[in-house]
Amino acid sequence: MSDEEYRHKWWGWGPEGHEYHMDGRPDFWAWICKTAEITDPQPTTPHASRESIILPPRRQNAAFEQQITEQFQDDQVHVDDNDRIAHSYGRSYRDLVRLRAGIIDHPPDMVLYPHSHEDVERVVECAVEHDVCLIPFGGGTNIVGCVEPTDQKERMAVTLDMRRMDRLLNVDRESMTADLQPGMFGPQIEEALNQIGLSLGHHPDSFVYSTLGGWLATRSAGTQSNAYGKIEHMVIGMRVVTPTGTVETKPVPAASTGPDLNQLIVGSEGTLGIITQATMRVHPVPDFEDYRLLLFPSFDHGYRAILDCVQRGWIPSLARLSDERETELMFVAKRPVTGIKRLVQKYGRRVLKLRGYGSPAALVVAFEGSRKKARQLKREVLKLCRRHRGFDLGTGPGEAWKESRYDVPYLRDYLMDYGAIADSFETSTAWSNLMPLHRSVTAAIKQTVERVTGRSGYYLGCHISHLYETGACLYYTLAVRARDGSSPEEMIEQFNTIKRATTDEMMRCGGALSHHHAVGYEHQPWIEQELSTAGVNALRAVKQSLDPSGILNPGSLIPPK
Amino acid sequence: MSDEEYRHKWWGWGPEGHEYHMDGRPDFWAWICKTAEITDPQPTTPHASRESIILPPRRQNAAFEQQITEQFQDDQVHVDDNDRIAHSYGRSYRDLVRLRAGIIDHPPDMVLYPHSHEDVERVVECAVEHDVCLIPFGGGTNIVGCVEPTDQKERMAVTLDMRRMDRLLNVDRESMTADLQPGMFGPQIEEALNQIGLSLGHHPDSFVYSTLGGWLATRSAGTQSNAYGKIEHMVIGMRVVTPTGTVETKPVPAASTGPDLNQLIVGSEGTLGIITQATMRVHPVPDFEDYRLLLFPSFDHGYRAILDCVQRGWIPSLARLSDERETELMFVAKRPVTGIKRLVQKYGRRVLKLRGYGSPAALVVAFEGSRKKARQLKREVLKLCRRHRGFDLGTGPGEAWKESRYDVPYLRDYLMDYGAIADSFETSTAWSNLMPLHRSVTAAIKQTVERVTGRSGYYLGCHISHLYETGACLYYTLAVRARDGSSPEEMIEQFNTIKRATTDEMMRCGGALSHHHAVGYEHQPWIEQELSTAGVNALRAVKQSLDPSGILNPGSLIPPK
Repeated sequence: MSDEEYRHKWWGWGPEGHEYHMDGRPDFWAWICKTAEITDPQPTTPHASRESIILPPRRQNAAFEQQITEQFQDDQVHVDDNDRIAHSYGRSYRDLVRLRAGIIDHPPDMVLYPHSHEDVERVVECAVEHDVCLIPFGGGTNIVGCVEPTDQKERMAVTLDMRRMDRLLNVDRESMTADLQPGMFGPQIEEALNQIGLSLGHHPDSFVYSTLGGWLATRSAGTQSNAYGKIEHMVIGMRVVTPTGTVETKPVPAASTGPDLNQLIVGSEGTLGIITQATMRVHPVPDFEDYRLLLFPSFDHGYRAILDCVQRGWIPSLARLSDERETELMFVAKRPVTGIKRLVQKYGRRVLKLRGYGSPAALVVAFEGSRKKARQLKREVLKLCRRHRGFDLGTGPGEAWKESRYDVPYLRDYLMDYGAIADSFETSTAWSNLMPLHRSVTAAIKQTVERVTGRSGYYLGCHISHLYETGACLYYTLAVRARDGSSPEEMIEQFNTIKRATTDEMMRCGGALSHHHAVGYEHQPWIEQELSTAGVNALRAVKQSLDPSGILNPGSLIPPK
Repeated sequence: MSDEEYRHKWWGWGPEGHEYHMDGRPDFWAWICKTAEITDPQPTTPHASRESIILPPRRQNAAFEQQITEQFQDDQVHVDDNDRIAHSYGRSYRDLVRLRAGIIDHPPDMVLYPHSHEDVERVVECAVEHDVCLIPFGGGTNIVGCVEPTDQKERMAVTLDMRRMDRLLNVDRESMTADLQPGMFGPQIEEALNQIGLSLGHHPDSFVYSTLGGWLATRSAGTQSNAYGKIEHMVIGMRVVTPTGTVETKPVPAASTGPDLNQLIVGSEGTLGIITQATMRVHPVPDFEDYRLLLFPSFDHGYRAILDCVQRGWIPSLARLSDERETELMFVAKRPVTGIKRLVQKYGRRVLKLRGYGSPAALVVAFEGSRKKARQLKREVLKLCRRHRGFDLGTGPGEAWKESRYDVPYLRDYLMDYGAIADSFETSTAWSNLMPLHRSVTAAIKQTVERVTGRSGYYLGCHISHLYETGACLYYTLAVRARDGSSPEEMIEQFNTIKRATTDEMMRCGGALSHHHAVGYEHQPWIEQELSTAGVNALRAVKQSLDPSGILNPGSLIPPK
């Protein structure tokens, strides 16, 4: 078990050596340069050197540290700079700007790797006794600030890195549930389950570097959420260590025993307790899988197609409808095929253009599950899509999308070398509100981006994903160069202005504050508007009850009163 | 709008004049007498006369009453005995024993009928100001004590009867949601929605006399929960008046904005706030519906059949598998057919017996939805059932079951005339635990019933219903005569002993404290064991935050510290 596996490079996404490769994508870089007004041949804002970073001194709590040293093995307790840096931030734009500039004001003072539920109980007990803050940490991929140690009282902060609690504890094949430890990364979970013919089926974009515990703490959504639900729909029971005792929820399929404690803890972002075990609903490894790409003459055509599917009860396992701009990016980023295939493709593109697909919207769609059902679903969905002028490009591009689906965050690192502001914004809303909200939010983003950065060339793409009977998620990706010569602080300020305008508009239009990115500190300014004052007070009361001294992840979710 | 519609007779189930009819069921009464050791030709324990009941005097709070009188219309404020009696209890066994004996120790001191959200805000405000307790009341069908006004501080108690808030406010056809007021009774909801081609699809056994607000407050489950979910799975958003402000949850399909407030309020039994509006997921009126009855050689055969269906992903819209005893009751309670049909039936029964169905287990199963999907589902389920020796009796008996499905509570009134203890117990658990739990719980009930009542003749039936991928609900119905000559108090004591033993055993075996009956005061003694001490404290904290003076339904759900 290596702690380095799944660990990000200190300044960006993915382990050292993993990055976005422009080779073999001849048109892509030129397209990016044109789109994002990049004129410099060389990076303008490379990241700082590791050596240049000087961390603030550790806040020390001698009594706590002594107790910890006595109770834990040496290799569980880390105070070195590398470990502190690696646990300072998640991977939001603001996080990356600061990391790359070497601005690390709130690193944890210690990183502790628990091996067991009992370890967590012990460290929580010590932390309570000595008033030390604890920040649970999975893969560190969160992009709203859920893992940054910030405490108004400036107490010592210890990050609990859960990655060593990475075991599949038990499988109940009759009930199709699995008991998992929270530190398992996406690939570990699927590997362990696949070996025995099972799957969890949760594949968020961060899949490779995020953990079950992180997913649960943030209400994560995987690409196939249409088929299996968001993570909060898959959890049956949990074991959670709180400063006032361990909460164990009973792994029953449904109950009528007051408010649902699972749904109180899921999404609590480490502020109420530390999840040490979860019973999850699993399913057989699908014996049928079909990923394919369809083109529609426009985003609107695609929207009507997927809504038609939903309303008729034929919801594909995955559906991701990109607007025209995102579709353009998908095609230009693709590694081109060669030879005869290329000729055919070129010819096909011309024909498509003539037939009204000159600026198409792409729908990635997948059907998986037991053969009989999945094939029928495929048949029905494709039939409905044809009615709305969906043009089926087949499984080739679908598989290509599947293979490259985890690449985007690498690309962001690349763009940040050239002073780009690059992040995503997402919301969810009812079907009837989806397109009106989309139009308003797009206008608000564009207007703010242009005003704030002074640029007219930038990338803003959007897709609809995560379909429900009553609505869906809208996901925006933005890349725009900050004003020339901006300092890191100025970059963040420009980003903040855009983020504020975007979120304000989403809220004004009745969208959710977040569909699957959580609250952290980034969405905190809107949480009271989202949940109502009485609602936030109720959560504060829960927090006060379970964590009276406020040692658990103090910066996240619930704003100070 | 009549307040009397949907109102129970004061001593039993359903309006005056509606009762269980034995005529046309020649074998049934004889079977009951034999089964339940009834030897008396005439009722031994008829209910008291209405005139004999003397209610305790009203606890009066003059300042509160003056304010209410000023702010509400005369016909909204009732203090007469009939209204007080009608809102004293739900319809549990304990409730009925006391009602029938005229023992009404805690009637509400006033019954108020709000007409709007603003009315509810007003009355909550007055109640807070004058420290008066409020008990929200839907149809009064709850069987665990959720509507009985009990307050340790003996404050004035006002029941809020919500039935006049009975409007369908808005329908969003694109998003397939409907905004409903909480006082709508089951039939009102379906009538209003059916008129525009929609349906909620929630049919608990209490359907005719229970309301949306009551369902939400108790996490109710309808017979077709396999297809549409429990009520907590159908709710998208709510408007809830609490003593510290109104909580409005955003009607989005899913979100990642901390703990789920909908799931905090659903099931809170009126202790956190009063629901004044709910946005519910709806669906088109099914264009295909097929209810049928199958027989299996044994309960165990049926169990394996439904588990097989679930594991292969073919879950019928409704599945209710009765054990051998409940099946016997179903057949003996049936109105017999006559003529040739009767001959055929008799012959059929003999053949079935010869083929191993001498003591069969009945599975009521339904397939509904869009024609294509529902028919396929039917095909697959019936195929799987055949593999497990399911014998299809067709739609006739299925339809008969559907028609009579709301009758059982009437039968209870009938039996209580003969000194019967009659109630139901239910739980949910994982599939792998279902049959072991069933065996243990059955043994515990039998042993306790026989010890407590001294009888060997009684009825105990069970069915499995509400199927989930990971488990199901087990539902027991018991009817046994109390010891001869028992006083009402002694009857309750005998019942309590049986209830305690049953619930203890369910808890010991890992079953849920309740799957869909809620907590009230009846399940309160086990709630801490169910949710853990820290969990109950968290709920207490929420309660303290939203309702600091504890005026909302003080007797229910959360035990006093």
